[in-house]
Amino acid sequence: MKIQQAPDRKVIENKLFKQKANALKPKLNKKLHRPVSIVETFRDEYTMHGWASKFVESAKHLKMKNYGKSDSFILDFGTHHVGYFSMNINPVGSPPDAPLHLRLTFGEMPIEVSVPFTEYNGWISSSWLQEETIHVDVLPGIVTLPRRYSFRYVKVEILDTSVKYRVSFEDVYCNTVTSADPDYVVALNHGDTEIEKIDGTAVKTLENCMHDVFEDGPKRDRRLWLGDLRLQALVNYETFQNNNLVKRCLYLFAAVPDDRGRIAANLFVQPALIPDDTYLFDYSLFFTTTLHDYFIESNDWETLNDLWPIAYQQVEIALERLDTFNVVKDDNSWWSFIDWNDDLNKQTSSQAILIYALKKVLNIAKILHEQEKSMYLQRRIEDVTQAALNHLWDETSGFFVSGSNRQLSWASQIWMVIAGVFGQEENRRLMRRLLKEKLPITLNTPYMYHHLVEALLLSGEKKKAMLMIKQYWGGMIRHGADTFWELYNPNDNEYSPYGSHLINSYCHAWSCTPAYFIRKYNL
Amino acid sequence: MKIQQAPDRKVIENKLFKQKANALKPKLNKKLHRPVSIVETFRDEYTMHGWASKFVESAKHLKMKNYGKSDSFILDFGTHHVGYFSMNINPVGSPPDAPLHLRLTFGEMPIEVSVPFTEYNGWISSSWLQEETIHVDVLPGIVTLPRRYSFRYVKVEILDTSVKYRVSFEDVYCNTVTSADPDYVVALNHGDTEIEKIDGTAVKTLENCMHDVFEDGPKRDRRLWLGDLRLQALVNYETFQNNNLVKRCLYLFAAVPDDRGRIAANLFVQPALIPDDTYLFDYSLFFTTTLHDYFIESNDWETLNDLWPIAYQQVEIALERLDTFNVVKDDNSWWSFIDWNDDLNKQTSSQAILIYALKKVLNIAKILHEQEKSMYLQRRIEDVTQAALNHLWDETSGFFVSGSNRQLSWASQIWMVIAGVFGQEENRRLMRRLLKEKLPITLNTPYMYHHLVEALLLSGEKKKAMLMIKQYWGGMIRHGADTFWELYNPNDNEYSPYGSHLINSYCHAWSCTPAYFIRKYNL
Repeated sequence: MKIQQAPDRKVIENKLFKQKANALKPKLNKKLHRPVSIVETFRDEYTMHGWASKFVESAKHLKMKNYGKSDSFILDFGTHHVGYFSMNINPVGSPPDAPLHLRLTFGEMPIEVSVPFTEYNGWISSSWLQEETIHVDVLPGIVTLPRRYSFRYVKVEILDTSVKYRVSFEDVYCNTVTSADPDYVVALNHGDTEIEKIDGTAVKTLENCMHDVFEDGPKRDRRLWLGDLRLQALVNYETFQNNNLVKRCLYLFAAVPDDRGRIAANLFVQPALIPDDTYLFDYSLFFTTTLHDYFIESNDWETLNDLWPIAYQQVEIALERLDTFNVVKDDNSWWSFIDWNDDLNKQTSSQAILIYALKKVLNIAKILHEQEKSMYLQRRIEDVTQAALNHLWDETSGFFVSGSNRQLSWASQIWMVIAGVFGQEENRRLMRRLLKEKLPITLNTPYMYHHLVEALLLSGEKKKAMLMIKQYWGGMIRHGADTFWELYNPNDNEYSPYGSHLINSYCHAWSCTPAYFIRKYNL
Repeated sequence: MKIQQAPDRKVIENKLFKQKANALKPKLNKKLHRPVSIVETFRDEYTMHGWASKFVESAKHLKMKNYGKSDSFILDFGTHHVGYFSMNINPVGSPPDAPLHLRLTFGEMPIEVSVPFTEYNGWISSSWLQEETIHVDVLPGIVTLPRRYSFRYVKVEILDTSVKYRVSFEDVYCNTVTSADPDYVVALNHGDTEIEKIDGTAVKTLENCMHDVFEDGPKRDRRLWLGDLRLQALVNYETFQNNNLVKRCLYLFAAVPDDRGRIAANLFVQPALIPDDTYLFDYSLFFTTTLHDYFIESNDWETLNDLWPIAYQQVEIALERLDTFNVVKDDNSWWSFIDWNDDLNKQTSSQAILIYALKKVLNIAKILHEQEKSMYLQRRIEDVTQAALNHLWDETSGFFVSGSNRQLSWASQIWMVIAGVFGQEENRRLMRRLLKEKLPITLNTPYMYHHLVEALLLSGEKKKAMLMIKQYWGGMIRHGADTFWELYNPNDNEYSPYGSHLINSYCHAWSCTPAYFIRKYNL
């Protein structure tokens, strides 16, 4: 586990940008949902994580039951929800002569309501586990928990009532919240029901990640990350078309660069706008590419003019990392995300992302008739591309290598294809080799699988892209996903970069891109 | 453990009385208190429950410290408080990238912040144990817990932050609440500092039990009980003089009798006025005696006229329990509290309480010039007193006996003295025998010790009464009491009727009467 901390960094706030972002704060759409059934979970080795749920009875029966000390039940809301949880609780028996003590556990997956959270031993904070222990002093009454939860299952454990009374749950519901408006989503009449199901799941994933800002995951980290934002924006243009939310997020990032002009990898918006002290080579560049994509979609000149200087600055800062051979320096002083993989060398992927970003920023420069900058950028694209070919391409293996150990990874090839270092024909040959030869350093996240599909599409492999979507995202659905997951390794059901899959997020923004591919590329 | 439940009982609501009670709802006085020190607790066999606390450093140092996962500390507020707990928490390090997960444990006594509540195995609900586990999503910020706590010590356990940040506690405070106004309490310049200390502790006990209603204990049950109200009212007249609160409580009880006219032993006031389904022979009679005492104190004719019919009815209902010999029937169908003692036979004490109540109700009847009732009551007092002498007095032992097994208990003698079955001289001889011969069934609660002191005073034993107060209530102070306890057995530090002293209340209304004795009788 490696973390970045910058105790001495300085934030230079742009008040105007902050004001513009605040003015775009979205109204959340609310909707009431009730549980569908009472379920039990059980060990099942064929299911993801080894835990499955089974129907016991309709949730309509709940109000007829009553519970005492040590009783518990699990409610299944039928699909994934993000919102506020309420219970209308009645005492049964004598007037309640002691508080009601309850434990509530919210799970996106059956395992979360099956395995005690005390078993969690990952390195990321256990405080993300969605569990509350509450006392209810006044009954009957409606109890609404103040925090927002991301869940399909709720386990209710009655820790204690008193010897004089039990409790019944007259009503249980979730007020879901989202800044997405489903009315904007055009129905997909595809014909292939598998694709329709994948598209629907992707759209729901994005919907459940859209709140005050585009969040990475409503369970964890509930935060605006640039890597996720870039992909969410792309899916959003094809679905909910809430372009103001993209605009707001861009202004938020631009409002709090550090004193070197760097845009942070992610932001906190409560209690105030605060950039995280994590700066990533690739993510900072994605600010620029996201602005590019936003302008192409929206034709919003005001935003482009406002944010162009700081967007350009991200590229300038990235270019400073080039060595005398125009190769991104790889040492211990930098951070680039690329994928959740400690074994992955990030140099070549980062070089490719720089090229990818330079091309987008050149496009903006041209739109803005910035001739001098355009000429400069054109030259730099050629330099950096040539450097990639001279220093990172390995003719013998037919693959790009990365780092001083000349590592062979999927990520390097995929990103070089997306960067367009080769033409389409050469790209296609590279991708075919990649799929055939199975390089040792593979892909760990749906985020990196997104780039695999993108690379396939860019190299004209539409069928293979489609197959990959069906295989990978369809695989999550076959494992019972209601929304797409942060992490999915078809060969390792227990995979987690955090030391425990209990803490993984099972509705995660960077996994929602099948809807983009399917709709944008008419797959 | 025996509990009373009456699923079929009917409540006959008196709307006018309820309105009058509601109009008297008190305003709560608030005051801010901060912790005095950071302490540690340690095993000490010489201290109550075997746990003591020791000073570590001033609480002023708290804000200079910071804490991470698995750290904990204990704050000592210096004395007992009842109110709402707040913390101003700052993150230290990176911006908090995960919620803060805290456990807070509130203790009136050191043991409560020393022994895990999971060890509790008493029969009364564990939900009374004052512990909260909370998530704080937004930092920095002020966290105010919504529930009211009764405590001197707070243990703060940091269950998790994240690897990127720790927390510091900039400020911690308690907003205490009470409907008592200390300005009304006349300073006691007694000369005997021990008596002054006992009086002060008693006054504080009452103060911390005065809220929306007179509560029995602010930790547990937080409820209006008639047995406690009767004694609280007596102390209140000598101290806070909040007579409207007594009046309010009388109207509340009178507003919800059952269909037989019985007044419940205790009331719930949230979410609505609901009488508990517990009815006690002695407590129902205490409604009448409390009204008597209130009128004598307040000269409030309106209340007396309003409540006289239902007060009289309690005596009529009690008289129905007499057998043909005018002795209170003892069988399995009735409940009388008297003391927390399953071994105690309640017949003779109840007979005495009936005589005690009859005399007070006769006094009211005379005040109201109810001649017919007065004559009837006079006759009944004679009948019931004579019955006590004929059937419950045992000439051989020189004690009153109770029940078919002719049980010898302290309670029977004490209550017969208070009832005035004998004259003062005979009473004094009885009390002297009692103190000398040590009957097997002794006293378990400060509530019953109150009656012992009252019996001593009524039999002219002022010195012995004083000594008993110094010995018993002074004993609690010598064990570190800031407020007087629900339960104290000088011979058994572990005593609890609930199966665990963790759940005992350490600020309890029925223990506050030394201030009444000291001030009323000029002890």
